[in-house]
Amino acid sequence: MVSMKRLVLLALTFTTLQAEEGMWTFDNPPTRLVQDKYNFAITPQWLDHVRLSSIRLNDGGSGSFVSPTGLLLTNHHVALGQLQKNSTPERDYVKSGFYARTSEEEIKSPDLEVNVLVSMENVTARVQDALKGARNAEQEFAKRKDVIAAIERESLEKTGFRSDVVTLYQGGEYWLYRYKKYTDVRIVFAPEQQIAFYGGDPDNFTYPRYDLDFALFRVYENGRPIQSQNFLRWNPKGAADGELVFVSGHPGSTQRLDTLAQLEAERDLYEPSILKIYHSRIDVLKKYSATGPEATRRAMAQIFSLENSLKAYDGRLKGLQDKRVMDAKRADEAKFKAQVAANPQWKAAYGNAWDQIAAAEKKAQTRFKEQYFHGLNSSLANLAQQVVQYVAEIKKPDGERLAGYHESQLESLRLGMFSPAPIYPDMEIARITGALELDLAEAGSNDPWVKLVMNGKSPRDVAAELVNGTKLTDPEVRKKLVEGGESAVAASTDSMIVLARKLDPVRRELTKWLEDNVQSVEQRAGEQLGKARFAAFGKSTYPDATFTLRLSYGQVKGYPMNGTIAPPMTTMFGLYDRSASFGNKGPFELPQRYVEGRDKLDLSTPLNFVSSNDIIGGNSGSPVVNKNGEIVGLIFDGNIESLVGDFVYEGETNRAVAVHTAAITEALRKLYGAEALANELLR
Amino acid sequence: MVSMKRLVLLALTFTTLQAEEGMWTFDNPPTRLVQDKYNFAITPQWLDHVRLSSIRLNDGGSGSFVSPTGLLLTNHHVALGQLQKNSTPERDYVKSGFYARTSEEEIKSPDLEVNVLVSMENVTARVQDALKGARNAEQEFAKRKDVIAAIERESLEKTGFRSDVVTLYQGGEYWLYRYKKYTDVRIVFAPEQQIAFYGGDPDNFTYPRYDLDFALFRVYENGRPIQSQNFLRWNPKGAADGELVFVSGHPGSTQRLDTLAQLEAERDLYEPSILKIYHSRIDVLKKYSATGPEATRRAMAQIFSLENSLKAYDGRLKGLQDKRVMDAKRADEAKFKAQVAANPQWKAAYGNAWDQIAAAEKKAQTRFKEQYFHGLNSSLANLAQQVVQYVAEIKKPDGERLAGYHESQLESLRLGMFSPAPIYPDMEIARITGALELDLAEAGSNDPWVKLVMNGKSPRDVAAELVNGTKLTDPEVRKKLVEGGESAVAASTDSMIVLARKLDPVRRELTKWLEDNVQSVEQRAGEQLGKARFAAFGKSTYPDATFTLRLSYGQVKGYPMNGTIAPPMTTMFGLYDRSASFGNKGPFELPQRYVEGRDKLDLSTPLNFVSSNDIIGGNSGSPVVNKNGEIVGLIFDGNIESLVGDFVYEGETNRAVAVHTAAITEALRKLYGAEALANELLR
Repeated sequence: MVSMKRLVLLALTFTTLQAEEGMWTFDNPPTRLVQDKYNFAITPQWLDHVRLSSIRLNDGGSGSFVSPTGLLLTNHHVALGQLQKNSTPERDYVKSGFYARTSEEEIKSPDLEVNVLVSMENVTARVQDALKGARNAEQEFAKRKDVIAAIERESLEKTGFRSDVVTLYQGGEYWLYRYKKYTDVRIVFAPEQQIAFYGGDPDNFTYPRYDLDFALFRVYENGRPIQSQNFLRWNPKGAADGELVFVSGHPGSTQRLDTLAQLEAERDLYEPSILKIYHSRIDVLKKYSATGPEATRRAMAQIFSLENSLKAYDGRLKGLQDKRVMDAKRADEAKFKAQVAANPQWKAAYGNAWDQIAAAEKKAQTRFKEQYFHGLNSSLANLAQQVVQYVAEIKKPDGERLAGYHESQLESLRLGMFSPAPIYPDMEIARITGALELDLAEAGSNDPWVKLVMNGKSPRDVAAELVNGTKLTDPEVRKKLVEGGESAVAASTDSMIVLARKLDPVRRELTKWLEDNVQSVEQRAGEQLGKARFAAFGKSTYPDATFTLRLSYGQVKGYPMNGTIAPPMTTMFGLYDRSASFGNKGPFELPQRYVEGRDKLDLSTPLNFVSSNDIIGGNSGSPVVNKNGEIVGLIFDGNIESLVGDFVYEGETNRAVAVHTAAITEALRKLYGAEALANELLR
Repeated sequence: MVSMKRLVLLALTFTTLQAEEGMWTFDNPPTRLVQDKYNFAITPQWLDHVRLSSIRLNDGGSGSFVSPTGLLLTNHHVALGQLQKNSTPERDYVKSGFYARTSEEEIKSPDLEVNVLVSMENVTARVQDALKGARNAEQEFAKRKDVIAAIERESLEKTGFRSDVVTLYQGGEYWLYRYKKYTDVRIVFAPEQQIAFYGGDPDNFTYPRYDLDFALFRVYENGRPIQSQNFLRWNPKGAADGELVFVSGHPGSTQRLDTLAQLEAERDLYEPSILKIYHSRIDVLKKYSATGPEATRRAMAQIFSLENSLKAYDGRLKGLQDKRVMDAKRADEAKFKAQVAANPQWKAAYGNAWDQIAAAEKKAQTRFKEQYFHGLNSSLANLAQQVVQYVAEIKKPDGERLAGYHESQLESLRLGMFSPAPIYPDMEIARITGALELDLAEAGSNDPWVKLVMNGKSPRDVAAELVNGTKLTDPEVRKKLVEGGESAVAASTDSMIVLARKLDPVRRELTKWLEDNVQSVEQRAGEQLGKARFAAFGKSTYPDATFTLRLSYGQVKGYPMNGTIAPPMTTMFGLYDRSASFGNKGPFELPQRYVEGRDKLDLSTPLNFVSSNDIIGGNSGSPVVNKNGEIVGLIFDGNIESLVGDFVYEGETNRAVAVHTAAITEALRKLYGAEALANELLR
């Protein structure tokens, strides 16, 4: 739910790193730490091999190449959206799984873009130089935006690569990341969701676990599978207890370096609101699902994703509410403040940053309801907003555009805007109705936005009018509007476009206000703290996660859990135990293939395993790599104890949860008759 | 560790009972509650059947008759002491298990007494009448002791049954319980400890669990197996998810009705001291074990028991340290106090009880080190103390004797005093050395008791002299001393007897001081609160546990655990999963029989299950009984969340853990070749 998260930039504080803590950038890997603890040398060759084999899936996950002919391994739950978009009531690939026995049978993902990080360039000096002469935070903000857009645009023009400037260390560094981009990504294999997400919402984010949460795509270019030596060789024995392993993937975001003021706002205001919104959305979709099997099928992927987020946010909030965590944060911040205060030069340059952030946080809270309870929760409304903004933004100079509409971002944006993925009008009506009910309850009927959208009508009537009066379900209609430009959009009587036009100035005003009063201040103060950090400590740590490629190291190992020890791995025996333990009911039911195929399996095959690698949401689908650069597992989750990882890494119990490679090969061969695919992995 | 616990009497406070809370006496079963929630009528016939089939094992556990020819089912860990006492280096029944294929092969337990509760009689009026005219708590204490001894003695003389007066509701009621006593109890079957205690100390008190913690004895009388229709028929299907089940057993003690003053003393002083002592004892025995395989064998049962207690006390202490628990207790006490204060009559009669208990607690703490750190941790020293006290006590009128030496208790006492169970001198030396080191560290070298015992020598020297200078390892020597009476004991130069004679007056002084200053006050105040309780609420609840027969009801059901749901039961699949998950190492290793016999088993057989029954230590070995009065499971543990059950029952997560009857029959038949025994159970 990236759209729900405010864009807040973070300030740095310092703890001593715990063993195995860190989501390291590839320009600054934990070479020394790994050498000291594991006597293993991370070489540049090893790093390049792993980086070029790692993939970002832009709908929110990670993956890796696992064959020289473009096989892409990721999680089933990362592939889920694409599976769902290719499913129909007649062939439900989510439920029954999918296997393309020939390349002709591979099916195209409607709107999946994947990226491979091909180069990284430090552009800190250029960005920071461009800010010189700015008289205040607002001016700095504009100049920063401008120079970043320019760097990205120039790079795109020069290299053709997707080019993103990434803010690291809260502005202590800026890096230009260039990505090779692929948009022809075809589905090769997916097991039944029932086994990929075995244990359902109850077992989600927990361990011991018994999930075959994997799927295979194949990446094409110019209509043919790519050919490349940048892939991770399949290690069929998989990870062993105690083994040193690496995770190379794209952690989404962390807030380990937030100031106390920011964390307290998260704890007391934002996270509880997000939970409220998720609860409401899940309720709405469950009621919708109850209307029939086709509704169930349509809503399933969204419910899955929302429940996943809900449980994660619930764990995050519990972390923030944990006195130990906040006390440690408080002590860290006090220590860092004291260090800055002790150096007169630092004090003058950076000493006010904390107070500035706290003041900006206070200000942001004055318009908090507008940020959280002015939502429609509608795919159609989002598309309408994009269309309306797109035609206006592309006419402006690149540096002045709204976030998301910069030249270098347009191609990826269009992939989503014109996606042929189905949109279900009845589900849209249900979602909008629920969102408006919540907005009404939270913002009140006198709220200007509520008045503007609802005009005194009931949520359901508004929703029905909006959905029945639009043709935006058809991607061709969206394309035509965009092609017609501002005049076509201005002339449109499509209900969703009409609403988007009305809301556009309201949104722009809020965005501008947040930029001027919150983001610009927090970016500037964050940069000051970032600089303070480098001044005091050098580059001895890692930046917060930014959905860019990171390397973490760790060890396969169990941990203390609920009075006993959680094992380093589970086996297929455990899958059958959990099923029988619950009478094979509900989320613990086995697919028929597993009931019937039991005796074919070697039940002692490792199924899932845990390691102490430091990961976070976005790492889903990341390869677990051994010292030889082979793949030994597939990250798909963190344990419940790791949910506090947004704020702090607790090494004793924080564990990444992965599918063991041995289980994937065992299942492909013995249950799915996918011998050819298994052989391709193993060749 | 009953000897470690101070004899404190408890005061009552009130919470609304949670569903399924309660360890009910058989005279006041939860008939209405069960009828309302489960629509099942508990009849007097059903109650008699269950009571007469239930067994107390006086070395600290519960059991039940499961055949008409005296088969007694209990836990392996309850039988462990007797198995160990019958083992030698050459035939270690603990390690390899035991199965008597014929009645000739059944082996006698050296010192096991088991009891069946044959009648209950309310003697409250007689006890309370006898206290009239007492001028203070001290006089009341003496009179109470006197009348209780008289009731027990009279009953023994009249009926021949073991007769115990039980204090319930903190003295709100006194009951005479008569027991049929059996002392010829032979071992029929025990599995390997490795499977009975599968998962070892880590898994102890946790769930999901995979233990075959059962053993079978046969009860004899006059040299022949008893014949009786009072037994629980074996239900081979065992417990089902959601089923209403009862537990009939002997919960040892709870402190749910302690006053805050008592709980705070437990939390801050006594429980931490007990933990310290247990840690020390375990360290000592582990060091001793490390000296060789025979030492390992000798120490194993004690280490097992100590680690079990340690984990339980650790959980209890965490419960006491839980702010929620103490806040709830505080609120309860305030509410009860207010109710008493609101009634002038109650206020006058009972209103001072809390303050009196608090004052007594304070006083007790002034001699706290003497109670906790004047120990020798020696079987030989305990026997010597018994011999010295025995010959003195039996000459006194019954009512004036020390606790444990009343006429009605002598037979059971002698069973232990003259037990042929082996005592290992080298282990005794190790234990005494460790205990004296702890005493020295805690009480200090100037402590009079320390001086008296050690006389300036080193702990090891004292221990060696004591053990090398005694012949009490031989039960005949003990018998001869007792037969010789006071003069023989006075003349003895046996080192242990000499020490026991020296310590006897010291112990008596402390006992008397505690009686006069603590127990008498707390008994009287406790009785007042017990009466206040009946006055205000009638007999709507259950008394604290007293190692007497209790009935609890509950439902087979899973519970929320560590972010997910713990299943209502586990299966044999899970046993093999846990083993393979840990590489079949350490406490997760399977006995060879299980490795080799895997394919013979139906792995979906339920192994352990959980139910919401309210139990506590002492319930080990209790039968789980269905509505038809059949046995469907065997209690062997509570989950980690139940350890707070000493103080409060938390229905959402408190679970009793039981072996499923189906697993027992499956294992007997398919792995142990004990078809005949399985048939006896099933006939």
